[in-house]
Amino acid sequence: MTMPSVNNGVNVQALLDAREALKGAPEATKFTWRASCKWQNVTHSQTKVQSFFGLGQEQSHKTMTTHDADHPEIFASEDKGVTPIEYMLVGLASCLTAGVAAVAQNRGIQLRSVESNVEGKMDIRGILGIDSDVRNGYDDIKVTFKIDADASKKEIEALVAQSQKRSAVYDVITNPVNVTVEVV
Amino acid sequence: MTMPSVNNGVNVQALLDAREALKGAPEATKFTWRASCKWQNVTHSQTKVQSFFGLGQEQSHKTMTTHDADHPEIFASEDKGVTPIEYMLVGLASCLTAGVAAVAQNRGIQLRSVESNVEGKMDIRGILGIDSDVRNGYDDIKVTFKIDADASKKEIEALVAQSQKRSAVYDVITNPVNVTVEVV
Repeated sequence: MTMPSVNNGVNVQALLDAREALKGAPEATKFTWRASCKWQNVTHSQTKVQSFFGLGQEQSHKTMTTHDADHPEIFASEDKGVTPIEYMLVGLASCLTAGVAAVAQNRGIQLRSVESNVEGKMDIRGILGIDSDVRNGYDDIKVTFKIDADASKKEIEALVAQSQKRSAVYDVITNPVNVTVEVV
Repeated sequence: MTMPSVNNGVNVQALLDAREALKGAPEATKFTWRASCKWQNVTHSQTKVQSFFGLGQEQSHKTMTTHDADHPEIFASEDKGVTPIEYMLVGLASCLTAGVAAVAQNRGIQLRSVESNVEGKMDIRGILGIDSDVRNGYDDIKVTFKIDADASKKEIEALVAQSQKRSAVYDVITNPVNVTVEVV
């Protein structure tokens, strides 16, 4: 399917080869992603991301990154970072965008630009404990893509739909995940 | 409940006052959080976060922050940022940590340190399209807190449980959210 004349920078052949190689290696496809968080003060925390496990062994990002999170000043906090719930939107937008690039490459579609705006709606009566019928998290999230590419509107819509179908973050947000929290 | 001698930096009184004030103002509690993402190259994107809507009007973080996301080198990418799915862990850890600080302040518990490790397990046969019965996202996420505070193990466990109960990110990850994706 790959047309050599198209170049979005994505090495689709490597992904297709990996898919073939991993078909017979169920242990290699089990990944563990990690993050370590330290409370700083008030509602400010710093979370570090570097190591992960996959392809049967310990792996590492090239660099360790630190992610500040805080609540905004209107919640009587110091706004030293993004609100934790905003990180959900960062993850969703970036996951769908990476998917669009990979699928476009596989389909021989040259991308010129891919932009998206994400909006998540939430009623804070939930987290403030005003009304127990109001959920704590988002009611609705809307992602709007604007894509400039050598393709028809219909082909672009199909790109986005396929990215959505394979998106890890889209799955985590739209379906329940089992989360265990413990204190040691 | 607040003991003045305890200081985790959280202005609990402001939050309690806000809760009272917002009880009669259903429009003020409706928040919209936002992020704007731009594809850079390959699977690398940058997502900017600054404005949001709440308390009935446009709001803004003190500064605009930019969040790089990419896939790691073992996926034939350039590792120019955190993998999108790792942002889910950053959001979860920071949300629960901010909650622990706020609840501790309200219960008169002095915190000395709050650390957590988060691990998310995922089988990449889903995203690679090897097996359609394997989900794209996390199967399981485990958060492990280590908290040093002037409190018993039982009180610390209760702190964490209350934070979990009111966490927006915990809700988004453990329950389904409606997500709409469109192309304009």
